[in-house]
Amino acid sequence: MEEAAFAPDAPKTSRLDRRKARTRQALIDAAVRLMTEGRGERASIQEITEEADIGFGSFYNHFESKEQLFQVASQEVMELWGAMFDRASAGITDPAVRVAVGVRLTGRLAWTHPTIAGFFADAGLDAIEFPSGLAARGLRDIRAGQAAGRFTVKEAEVALSAIAGGMCGLLRRHRRDLENVDESSVDELAEEALRLLGVPAREAARIVARPLST
Amino acid sequence: MEEAAFAPDAPKTSRLDRRKARTRQALIDAAVRLMTEGRGERASIQEITEEADIGFGSFYNHFESKEQLFQVASQEVMELWGAMFDRASAGITDPAVRVAVGVRLTGRLAWTHPTIAGFFADAGLDAIEFPSGLAARGLRDIRAGQAAGRFTVKEAEVALSAIAGGMCGLLRRHRRDLENVDESSVDELAEEALRLLGVPAREAARIVARPLST
Repeated sequence: MEEAAFAPDAPKTSRLDRRKARTRQALIDAAVRLMTEGRGERASIQEITEEADIGFGSFYNHFESKEQLFQVASQEVMELWGAMFDRASAGITDPAVRVAVGVRLTGRLAWTHPTIAGFFADAGLDAIEFPSGLAARGLRDIRAGQAAGRFTVKEAEVALSAIAGGMCGLLRRHRRDLENVDESSVDELAEEALRLLGVPAREAARIVARPLST
Repeated sequence: MEEAAFAPDAPKTSRLDRRKARTRQALIDAAVRLMTEGRGERASIQEITEEADIGFGSFYNHFESKEQLFQVASQEVMELWGAMFDRASAGITDPAVRVAVGVRLTGRLAWTHPTIAGFFADAGLDAIEFPSGLAARGLRDIRAGQAAGRFTVKEAEVALSAIAGGMCGLLRRHRRDLENVDESSVDELAEEALRLLGVPAREAARIVARPLST
């Protein structure tokens, strides 16, 4: 299906507009790559434009500053992750199952989407400070579980921070030693998260044994 | 008791040596304060020497670089915390009780030792990358609990990272809203940590209800 079918009244984009959008996206992609290599904010604009394979001078046609670019790039990574979670959790209403899906999916990014995984590993707990992505969905599901009496924890934010901490530990460990982290390590973290939230151990194990649709 | 009683053969320190040591300590204390105010690495050497109330020029008599000073200062905060934990956990052999003491003590730093708490809140998960302090003791106790069959988790490092993540979430939350974090929030996190490690919920609650000696 063509995009026009969804937005019949959208103005036609000129070739110049499209090229501009491509250059902007090349800068964002370069920023994401630099972030995942741990160079992020330390990279110069020169390095960013070289990485994006565009002229140094055109940077400021798209972004006011390096900080603005990295902000947009981080946002983009978060939204990509969020959309993946929304697909994988579509139709699931039990908050415990949703949390398990979130942890299991995010941990598997280590090999399915190393760029996003690298971003989380570097960002550490700052990853949950972004309004979109991880934090909003996780908090919403934890609160739903509290309201339904499914989780016994009182402080949703602290619990989310613990789960995010475990996730970063796992992703950092995978980066240091690829062989040490596999599906069973990720699923173990999902069980730990459910137990932490107050789901009985046996039920946590049962939930995490369900097939994961991605 | 005088120090000489413990080190009778130590060379006598001259007044100059003592003054040098005081200046060095003033720089370390200033660095710790700047770190806990979130300025840490961003502070200039000028700001550090002003904060320490010493002349700009004498900085390099004590440290080669800002990075070296902050490294030493972080180490010092970690060792201070470690010594507090060793006192509070002296004589306790059950790894589950030791982990609970560690979490309960560290969470209470928010009001007993705001400087150390601020350091942890800022450092985030990097706090467990230091070889001394938090990481070494926590890992040792988690491994002892695995060996004793007290904990069911397989990956000690990931579990430690989750507990540290919850702790940072709690300390950051306390800093944002002092009234929202009290002893019961800290003790709740200790229970969450024990459940995560694989201690049954009822037993985790019983362990955390024990009096805490500090």
